[in-house]
Amino acid sequence: DMVCEDITPADMVKRCDVIFTATPHGGASLPYVRECVRQSKKIIDLSADFRLHDRAVYEKWYEVSAPDDDLLKQAVYGLPELYADHIKKASIIANPGCYTTASILTNAPLVANNLIDKNSIIIDAKSGTSGAGRSAKVPNLFCEVNEGIRPYGVTTHRHTPEIEQELSLLAKTDITVIFTPHLVPMNRGILAVSYSDIEKDMSEDEITSLYKDFYKNAPFVRVLDKGVLPSTRYTVYTNYVDIAVKKDIRTKRYIVISSLDNLIKGAAGQAVQNMNLMFGFDETEGLKNFGFYP
Amino acid sequence: DMVCEDITPADMVKRCDVIFTATPHGGASLPYVRECVRQSKKIIDLSADFRLHDRAVYEKWYEVSAPDDDLLKQAVYGLPELYADHIKKASIIANPGCYTTASILTNAPLVANNLIDKNSIIIDAKSGTSGAGRSAKVPNLFCEVNEGIRPYGVTTHRHTPEIEQELSLLAKTDITVIFTPHLVPMNRGILAVSYSDIEKDMSEDEITSLYKDFYKNAPFVRVLDKGVLPSTRYTVYTNYVDIAVKKDIRTKRYIVISSLDNLIKGAAGQAVQNMNLMFGFDETEGLKNFGFYP
Amino acid sequence: DMVCEDITPADMVKRCDVIFTATPHGGASLPYVRECVRQSKKIIDLSADFRLHDRAVYEKWYEVSAPDDDLLKQAVYGLPELYADHIKKASIIANPGCYTTASILTNAPLVANNLIDKNSIIIDAKSGTSGAGRSAKVPNLFCEVNEGIRPYGVTTHRHTPEIEQELSLLAKTDITVIFTPHLVPMNRGILAVSYSDIEKDMSEDEITSLYKDFYKNAPFVRVLDKGVLPSTRYTVYTNYVDIAVKKDIRTKRYIVISSLDNLIKGAAGQAVQNMNLMFGFDETEGLKNFGFYP
Amino acid sequence: DMVCEDITPADMVKRCDVIFTATPHGGASLPYVRECVRQSKKIIDLSADFRLHDRAVYEKWYEVSAPDDDLLKQAVYGLPELYADHIKKASIIANPGCYTTASILTNAPLVANNLIDKNSIIIDAKSGTSGAGRSAKVPNLFCEVNEGIRPYGVTTHRHTPEIEQELSLLAKTDITVIFTPHLVPMNRGILAVSYSDIEKDMSEDEITSLYKDFYKNAPFVRVLDKGVLPSTRYTVYTNYVDIAVKKDIRTKRYIVISSLDNLIKGAAGQAVQNMNLMFGFDETEGLKNFGFYP
Repeated sequence: DMVCEDITPADMVKRCDVIFTATPHGGASLPYVRECVRQSKKIIDLSADFRLHDRAVYEKWYEVSAPDDDLLKQAVYGLPELYADHIKKASIIANPGCYTTASILTNAPLVANNLIDKNSIIIDAKSGTSGAGRSAKVPNLFCEVNEGIRPYGVTTHRHTPEIEQELSLLAKTDITVIFTPHLVPMNRGILAVSYSDIEKDMSEDEITSLYKDFYKNAPFVRVLDKGVLPSTRYTVYTNYVDIAVKKDIRTKRYIVISSLDNLIKGAAGQAVQNMNLMFGFDETEGLKNFGFYP
Repeated sequence: DMVCEDITPADMVKRCDVIFTATPHGGASLPYVRECVRQSKKIIDLSADFRLHDRAVYEKWYEVSAPDDDLLKQAVYGLPELYADHIKKASIIANPGCYTTASILTNAPLVANNLIDKNSIIIDAKSGTSGAGRSAKVPNLFCEVNEGIRPYGVTTHRHTPEIEQELSLLAKTDITVIFTPHLVPMNRGILAVSYSDIEKDMSEDEITSLYKDFYKNAPFVRVLDKGVLPSTRYTVYTNYVDIAVKKDIRTKRYIVISSLDNLIKGAAGQAVQNMNLMFGFDETEGLKNFGFYP
Repeated sequence: DMVCEDITPADMVKRCDVIFTATPHGGASLPYVRECVRQSKKIIDLSADFRLHDRAVYEKWYEVSAPDDDLLKQAVYGLPELYADHIKKASIIANPGCYTTASILTNAPLVANNLIDKNSIIIDAKSGTSGAGRSAKVPNLFCEVNEGIRPYGVTTHRHTPEIEQELSLLAKTDITVIFTPHLVPMNRGILAVSYSDIEKDMSEDEITSLYKDFYKNAPFVRVLDKGVLPSTRYTVYTNYVDIAVKKDIRTKRYIVISSLDNLIKGAAGQAVQNMNLMFGFDETEGLKNFGFYP
Repeated sequence: DMVCEDITPADMVKRCDVIFTATPHGGASLPYVRECVRQSKKIIDLSADFRLHDRAVYEKWYEVSAPDDDLLKQAVYGLPELYADHIKKASIIANPGCYTTASILTNAPLVANNLIDKNSIIIDAKSGTSGAGRSAKVPNLFCEVNEGIRPYGVTTHRHTPEIEQELSLLAKTDITVIFTPHLVPMNRGILAVSYSDIEKDMSEDEITSLYKDFYKNAPFVRVLDKGVLPSTRYTVYTNYVDIAVKKDIRTKRYIVISSLDNLIKGAAGQAVQNMNLMFGFDETEGLKNFGFYP
């Protein structure tokens, strides 16, 4: 049986090797981050507070103060497919969100290899309803969500600057994207479809190979063979990301599609993956579930 | 009680003022179309056979022969919002499909008014499962569809040339689009999100006004006020199309979103709307249902 | 465009021929009921306040005071299949709830004809989630309801005494029932399955005929032919009640199954049906929708 | 990568320590059962063929021939909560079905302790759609199942004699039950609600204690504390069975409610649990998942 204790951050950190904070943005995790640094412990923060390197960008999109600069500079963006080496040495991990994980992994090989017009990226994403959290709000009631699909946060969703930061770093130039999320009548899962204008023309086979190569050391990314498309059903309850690349010859665009579980690879599973790396465990420890049908 | 009779097309047409054919593409409606023309009766064909004016385009995408040229030339594309005057005088109506109705109405004001780069249109559409028909196929079983979202027909869906034909006619130049459909775990409804590059820059207010003006005589198009987004829930069980316009200042794109009921405005309701116009009835006769909550 | 006015019950009643009150139980409708009586207008109350004839029973199950005795005595229980003649002359209608309508109509022919052991009735009922109302409560969130079924209010649901009152009146003796409701992951619909011990043995054909005869003047009750079972799908969005009778020869029990739409025949549709009777309109006016597939 | 080999039952059995057969009823598993017996290997058959001890009962309900008598006599009914000791020594396990597991465990403590009128049991059960299998049939299409609940197999479902066999053995007298299954619009899960007339009157606390005691050695049965009701959500993706006991004082009946996952405790998980017992492994090996929310 579990008991909740009234305990100070200092005491909590003293008892642990690693802390996971799944707190609201706006400073709730800060006391734990500070204590972990003071006591040389590790912390994985699932909030948005440490994800954006640029304080001004954070403060504009989130309308709260960014954390102290010294802590911010120590934080590593916890996307193992891009930053495994940094994560291994990090003490503070800013664990990425669900939409961002999908959107960044979907586009990383394209922007890192200069294959597309970098201002052409349009990401149309769809999420299960657990992405909306568990607070008692009318728009999240069963009868409001069931039997309907709707977009939200069009042009204003807070995951946008996080996607742009990471793709810009990969491209070594500023990238601006459109990101449009939708609420889907299902519990879990994110599907991201990304459209971009081809600059370097490759066949679907070539680009699929390039993706497989890019992710060859990423145990949770499955680049699908030509002709197979992701469905959220095959990634829910797992830490996997499925990615497929299509080319529209008629309009000269790449269409890259990915799916993942917003609560696992988009949150808690990714946090465990980060912990595994930080502590020298096998990256897949505790994350080997292949999902369920149905 | 209903009885099914074994009856020739000639006899059937003789007894009716108007025939609705909801038959597969590839010529199944043809005998009824011929008889209607011979007997000076009216026919509304819900198949794809008479929708594409260019025989070669039809034959390429559908891989069957197009109907006789004389009949094809008499057919009017039955989208009342664009062709009400022609529909009133027509004998053969090619009733548009669900995705096409949504996609064309979403973009018509933009292309007719030269507001966008005509080669930039990307339509990301989501459909309820009734769009997949009622045949007994494993991918349409409850446990395959429920709790998942997946794209299909990426770059190859047959509604693409129909969208392109109508937008090209409005633009008076060739338009090529990307159209990506998705299967959503719900019975009814289509949501289409269209992205395009701004050529003529207008504010969200201005563009919303322009849409309201464009559809001022269309009783089933509801252009939503600024800040309100369509949800399929508000159009299911109705003949309405809801449309909202958003502008992404950061990337200089318009995002236009529409929703409708694939079985009503996207099929049978539109057919009745066409019949109303053909017979001089009030366009909204039999179609005034405002839907249900939930 | 609609405007909400701040208006007294007296003024509201003055302007109307009939008032529908869909207010919480516990007296919220009382001022309107009083005014309607004073001004000789008609009122249809969808709350529970006037449904139970016995004040003590009401006060025990609802834990609030029952309405004034004089008003209570004027109220007619608005189940048209049993009380059409009284409803025609009534000024105050206590409009029955969803579970009660299903449960009473399911058992009425059995108890009125002394076919069963009157203490043997067990009603196992299942409801769509709109039955839980629209308030923002965690148990009604999409992710709490979706992909699960659960019973609630076992042995304590407030519709129990209403079912017992009406079945007792039909049986001319006290009847006690078990009533077990369940929450089902769907928007609308109630399915009630009632089990009872056979006292007068009849074949399934005979009992089906008896049900058809019992409801021969009830335009919204469809007694299904032998071998056909109700599904909520065929009654949602309609005012119909589907009923089928099965006999379990092995255990000597009747199993009677019914379905209806909790928001129509179980609430607003029934209220309109009552209004039609009260004003001498055709009982089916405004209620002729046959539903939708899917 | 997996390869399917064309291999004889004899060769297959030779290579394995244990065989799981998930084949249709009517003899499909028989060659494997025979070979396992011949080669002294173990087999766990998930079909119905070996579940019913009485050949005549099997042949009446299934309308095919029962297996050879010598094999049938060696088979042990694989419900570990009742037969752990026999299972440990068995070579042939008849792995029980989903509805039966729920129905038997729900009623076992009542009938084994003579607490109820043994002819009064009524089981009203509800199942997710994976219970209907994966064959391409119209009634199992998404649009047929979604947004509806319906009963099926009323008075005739084949799990009935299996429930009766096991409850009769526990009661040491013949028991006949009503078993009514329903199809619910969700993927997984079974909820069984069982009603029975009290013969030995106990309080809810006492009967809950009696259930806890009855299942004290059953690691997968969770008897819920008074006031907590099962929901299928808390057992899906696990091998657990949740059971709660309610007493209806007004009608002198016990209401016992259980939930489990039809594909795990009702099929594959139970088979693994049986294997664990047969091979002397910890009974919970491979089955420790506590489920997922949501």
